[in-house]
Amino acid sequence: MGLLVVGSIGLDTVETQLGKIENALGGSATYISIASSYFTSPVNLVGVVGDDFGKKNIELFKSHNINLDGLQIVDGEKTFRWGGKYHEDMNNRDTIFTELNVFEKFDPIIPQSWKDNSFVLLGNILPSLQLRVLDQVTNPQFVVCDTMNLWINIALDDLMKVLKRINVLIINDSEAKMLSKETNLIKAAKIIRGFGPEYLVIKKGEHGALLFGNDFTFSAPALPMETIFDPTGAGDTFAGGFTSYLHKSKTINKASMKKAVIYGSVMASFCVEKFSTIGIENLSNEQISKRFNAFVELARFDFNE
Amino acid sequence: MGLLVVGSIGLDTVETQLGKIENALGGSATYISIASSYFTSPVNLVGVVGDDFGKKNIELFKSHNINLDGLQIVDGEKTFRWGGKYHEDMNNRDTIFTELNVFEKFDPIIPQSWKDNSFVLLGNILPSLQLRVLDQVTNPQFVVCDTMNLWINIALDDLMKVLKRINVLIINDSEAKMLSKETNLIKAAKIIRGFGPEYLVIKKGEHGALLFGNDFTFSAPALPMETIFDPTGAGDTFAGGFTSYLHKSKTINKASMKKAVIYGSVMASFCVEKFSTIGIENLSNEQISKRFNAFVELARFDFNE
Repeated sequence: MGLLVVGSIGLDTVETQLGKIENALGGSATYISIASSYFTSPVNLVGVVGDDFGKKNIELFKSHNINLDGLQIVDGEKTFRWGGKYHEDMNNRDTIFTELNVFEKFDPIIPQSWKDNSFVLLGNILPSLQLRVLDQVTNPQFVVCDTMNLWINIALDDLMKVLKRINVLIINDSEAKMLSKETNLIKAAKIIRGFGPEYLVIKKGEHGALLFGNDFTFSAPALPMETIFDPTGAGDTFAGGFTSYLHKSKTINKASMKKAVIYGSVMASFCVEKFSTIGIENLSNEQISKRFNAFVELARFDFNE
Repeated sequence: MGLLVVGSIGLDTVETQLGKIENALGGSATYISIASSYFTSPVNLVGVVGDDFGKKNIELFKSHNINLDGLQIVDGEKTFRWGGKYHEDMNNRDTIFTELNVFEKFDPIIPQSWKDNSFVLLGNILPSLQLRVLDQVTNPQFVVCDTMNLWINIALDDLMKVLKRINVLIINDSEAKMLSKETNLIKAAKIIRGFGPEYLVIKKGEHGALLFGNDFTFSAPALPMETIFDPTGAGDTFAGGFTSYLHKSKTINKASMKKAVIYGSVMASFCVEKFSTIGIENLSNEQISKRFNAFVELARFDFNE
């Protein structure tokens, strides 16, 4: 079965110290499905846009062999729009505007043929919508969920319901502390895994990522980067690379989970090098493989004493 | 030739959320030489104490086969004393008192037989004293230097002179930013290596450590720990494990440098589990080997795509 991706699709206006881009392709499901297209197929996208979304963006999805049977295009309505401005350190940003538009009434409808036995990636959207998706899928192979601080703050009850029904949660370090009410990440991971997910990935930005499983912890490095061009979508891209690698490998165990974290990091490192989705639009397998090897070099040491 | 260790030796009074200890063995050269004793010999200690230092502490050094021919014991004077209290997060501490005592007039005198061809570890002391040491050694095999924020603030000129004469500098991330006047660690590393040292180790506490060389970067994980008992001496212990492993391996290259960072991290992880030097006083080779393997497990992923 395919990889079922649900999340937001939008047009972003982003300003960083290095420049500004307007109405550029964005949204969690967008980054996820483009990143996923390098590892597996079919990537089955569920989302909503308005009739202003633009043929070019639709073509981009198609050129990545993303199955758009689950994409709702609402006539006479506008696509979700978000505007943000990053602080100089690139770790923080201010939201300048949010126009929900079609997203306000979005009801994710899973096409009949995708409902059974799917590998599911719940991109970062309102937890109640993630629940709506899970209510429609039967016998899912594996469920990965991404979320954010906003939902921990305003939709915790729904998020807790989601956590009981997923295999992997992906969040960042400050969100992990917020969700667990615990500042030590090791303790926080235990608490969050107690909420439901068997596996937990905690992203730490420039410090890499931690993967927690039943009987192991894995520490993945971050690629040393002198310049972050635009961090927008890096987390979604990570989730896409991570989940699609697992979907491709057809095996869920410690080894595949660790490699999935590295492939997530690989894809995220391409994402932040350019504005919007530009950094992940035209990658070759060779580039991905070379970047994977850079992570190997970065983390590898002689294991024999 | 032996491993020449120079630094402070003191009696520490330390308070953390988990307890308090008074007049406990401390000082950079103390942690360094005890940690080093597990990897190599002879460990040749240069330092100063008063006649109140205590036979028990001298015996501890001796039991670790540390050569004390360079230890000055000043009659009628008191040993260096430091008191500190850690904040709840264990990342920050306040100095409660500093009594320099014998340290005020300390002039490191290197015994004649240690002067030529030594492998040198300049522990964290005043840069002018580190220079005094370098002025006495001829034809050093390799020089590793540890320093701290205080010297960057009040003795930068001397520190810059030291940097020109060493092979490796070990500092933490906030010190790297301070010394380079650059917030991006990758850029900071380039700047600092431009000041002299071929290799740079940047310690990032719970986020592990980065090693920068001519044509590579290595990212070492930190052991996930739920409880830090006492961080005092962790940096010195890291420097000791790191340098003594290199001294033992007799090879300086990318592979040995990476492993040295792991052994430094291994020893530091033991140090923070107990007050003072207690965590590194009675280790077995088996314990060290088991902890090394924990780092392997933490960092290792399947390298084949």
